[in-house]
Amino acid sequence: MEENKDNIQFQISEELIEKVENLIAAKNDKELRKLLSEFHYADIAEILEEVDIDQAIYVIKLLDSETTSDVLMELDEDDREKVLKNLSSKEIAEEIEELDTDDAADIIAELPEERQKRVISHIEDEEHKAEIQELLAYDEDSAGGYMAKELVKVYETWTVAGCLRRIRGQAEEVTRVHSIYVVNKQEKLIGRLSLKDLIVAKNDQKISDIYISSVDFVNVNDEIEDVAKIMQKYDLEAIPVVDDDQTLLGRITIDDVVDFIKEEAEKDYQLAAGITQTVDSEDSIIDLTKARLPWLFLGLIGGVGAAYIMGGFEDMLQKHAILFFFTPLIAAMAGNVGVQSSAIIVQGLANDDVKGSINNRLLKEMLLAALNGIILAFVLLLFVWAWEGHFNVALAISLSLVIVIIVAGIIGTFIPLFLDKRGIDPAIATGPFITTSNDIFGILIYFTIAKLILNI
Amino acid sequence: MEENKDNIQFQISEELIEKVENLIAAKNDKELRKLLSEFHYADIAEILEEVDIDQAIYVIKLLDSETTSDVLMELDEDDREKVLKNLSSKEIAEEIEELDTDDAADIIAELPEERQKRVISHIEDEEHKAEIQELLAYDEDSAGGYMAKELVKVYETWTVAGCLRRIRGQAEEVTRVHSIYVVNKQEKLIGRLSLKDLIVAKNDQKISDIYISSVDFVNVNDEIEDVAKIMQKYDLEAIPVVDDDQTLLGRITIDDVVDFIKEEAEKDYQLAAGITQTVDSEDSIIDLTKARLPWLFLGLIGGVGAAYIMGGFEDMLQKHAILFFFTPLIAAMAGNVGVQSSAIIVQGLANDDVKGSINNRLLKEMLLAALNGIILAFVLLLFVWAWEGHFNVALAISLSLVIVIIVAGIIGTFIPLFLDKRGIDPAIATGPFITTSNDIFGILIYFTIAKLILNI
Repeated sequence: MEENKDNIQFQISEELIEKVENLIAAKNDKELRKLLSEFHYADIAEILEEVDIDQAIYVIKLLDSETTSDVLMELDEDDREKVLKNLSSKEIAEEIEELDTDDAADIIAELPEERQKRVISHIEDEEHKAEIQELLAYDEDSAGGYMAKELVKVYETWTVAGCLRRIRGQAEEVTRVHSIYVVNKQEKLIGRLSLKDLIVAKNDQKISDIYISSVDFVNVNDEIEDVAKIMQKYDLEAIPVVDDDQTLLGRITIDDVVDFIKEEAEKDYQLAAGITQTVDSEDSIIDLTKARLPWLFLGLIGGVGAAYIMGGFEDMLQKHAILFFFTPLIAAMAGNVGVQSSAIIVQGLANDDVKGSINNRLLKEMLLAALNGIILAFVLLLFVWAWEGHFNVALAISLSLVIVIIVAGIIGTFIPLFLDKRGIDPAIATGPFITTSNDIFGILIYFTIAKLILNI
Repeated sequence: MEENKDNIQFQISEELIEKVENLIAAKNDKELRKLLSEFHYADIAEILEEVDIDQAIYVIKLLDSETTSDVLMELDEDDREKVLKNLSSKEIAEEIEELDTDDAADIIAELPEERQKRVISHIEDEEHKAEIQELLAYDEDSAGGYMAKELVKVYETWTVAGCLRRIRGQAEEVTRVHSIYVVNKQEKLIGRLSLKDLIVAKNDQKISDIYISSVDFVNVNDEIEDVAKIMQKYDLEAIPVVDDDQTLLGRITIDDVVDFIKEEAEKDYQLAAGITQTVDSEDSIIDLTKARLPWLFLGLIGGVGAAYIMGGFEDMLQKHAILFFFTPLIAAMAGNVGVQSSAIIVQGLANDDVKGSINNRLLKEMLLAALNGIILAFVLLLFVWAWEGHFNVALAISLSLVIVIIVAGIIGTFIPLFLDKRGIDPAIATGPFITTSNDIFGILIYFTIAKLILNI
């Protein structure tokens, strides 16, 4: 029996890291093994991310591969890459042997192509090897790329007693038994059964009499995004994967889908904030610059465009310099309204709840923007009038603001809808993209309308 | 045995909605019941969201409460509120009887206080009633607010055979058996067991000999955010909830945590886009205005502040009007850099991977911003020089840009870290908040530096 350990209380501390580092330095393998055996593999991964890479590799080589394979899976991709570089193909193959097929395929896919072949050639379990090779062939964003081959499968012709006996064998390989999948002689998925159903049933009953034929499944070529939506909608913890002939190929579990959902949310969030590739705060300055600079360049182009437009209205400087003082306000409002509109559309598209025609949607956004714009413009009108004393100038600025806000709302609504229709991820339309185009349009509209009103 | 239905293929269509509406209009209850019995409750909820509220209520009253209780849970909160308003307290209590305790408590919590009491008084199952009342007492963001009372529990003194017999009884109430929780005589959680372990064990073994004492659990007062992190980190599908004395109170399942993760991600995304409360694209113009206008007002104040600052530099208009043309660029760059920096920090804080001191973090951001700023400023320098021909003016604008970007990066990094230290959700620091403060600081710094360089 394992020792009772309250994982919840795990808090990584300077003392713990120091203790691990000292044990490594002293090559006190016995104590180190003992210390780390108390921790969950996810906690060991957290510790290894805090020590030097040489020390991490020392620990990986020290512990048995049953533990280290799980630790490897939990490491950041960057850290894992460094560790794998320092292991031989044979050592990696030993780790792979301990992993479920989906994790095994994910790790191998991260290796350079030449290395992949060498590692695979070292896998001794022929069935495991064949399954991993099958998984490597699927697109990484498809159901096939996320599924594992490990599952518990029974034939409709079996009895409950025979079933329980055989499941004892299969179940040892499978970490968690969510559902038992029922297949016919041709290996086609025809239903499911829960362990609970099996326990509740009588020993001599046939599976064909007790299985539930209502079973959710996905095709191996379905996109993981759609699989995630289905699993969320129907609150599934695992879903079987079949090919076009309904042959049972594997299963996808909710923990992998949770990771996918989190990654997607982070990617969309970063796109909205103007960061092109997934980075985290611990990444290098070079990586962070690569992720951030492209959007800033876009902003620079937008700003230069706005400056150029303002240059064209230079003749208004003499009499109405105040117009130029409000350009940051106009640009900011156009940007903010555009981002608000596009964010709501992008989220609605992701959740499949954008219904009705594009025209209705644009009309609604126009009314919404007009309402917001009029309220804001009224406040601005009073302020500018009080400040400058020229009612006409105040009116020109305020009226332009209303039009700018309406146009910004329409652009923010239209662009993501348009991209989505074209099959492009609408999330790229949020953030700097919308802000920049709205800056330019906003300034142009603002000066054009102000000029008309002030009759210059 | 149920009919084989491929839920994956469910696509809501105009025809289907029309068919349902026609059957309701014709009061053809038999056909309507038959048609809807083919769909999963999540699909029925989708259909009801598309028809009129009166029609939805008609369907809810028509179907048996075993189905409609699940349908109710799947409806949008707004739609559910409307339906519940049209049901009597007794009818709601009948739905509640069919639901797991956590869902039952969630629905009751949405009702006005007076109504809550009446509905509860109508619940006939005394145990169910007591459990729901217990759950209603917990904070909605705590583990207690998310847990369900339904679970499978065994005593360490039982044998495997006795256990299987008793589990058959308990398991019928529990939709899914993730883990079997092992308690001692005092009802204290001491370990766990999977159904698989039980099946693999011999019939006459004692639970105390086979259970696994390493069990993750959370305290009933823990925040759900922390529970979600633990379940993700350790890939758990359910986690038991205990009180301060380790007494087993309930369990939380991954599907509820998935919903929480999605909602949090959407909330953060909307905050970054300048939307104060969770809305979706189908909400009314008034609701959308309420969510969007506050941030726009903040932007208005920022813009007025920037205009006021520029008014203070009016004397530079004569000789260096071009400086004023670049204010939208300066404001945009300050805003973009600020949002990028704050987004990375907000995400890092959410994932617990912001390590090291605030000073190191600020230093890194300063270097990063300086690198980005110098590259961008160099491009701008060439452009302005080519356009205007005055190297000094170009230099003044470009140098100011570098300083503005560095300051923006520092503000974007510091504010979320500061809010987090103070226990305030750092996500509110993204979007318009950062943009607006950076607009004002940016314009002020820009003109001050430009004035110094151009020696006016």
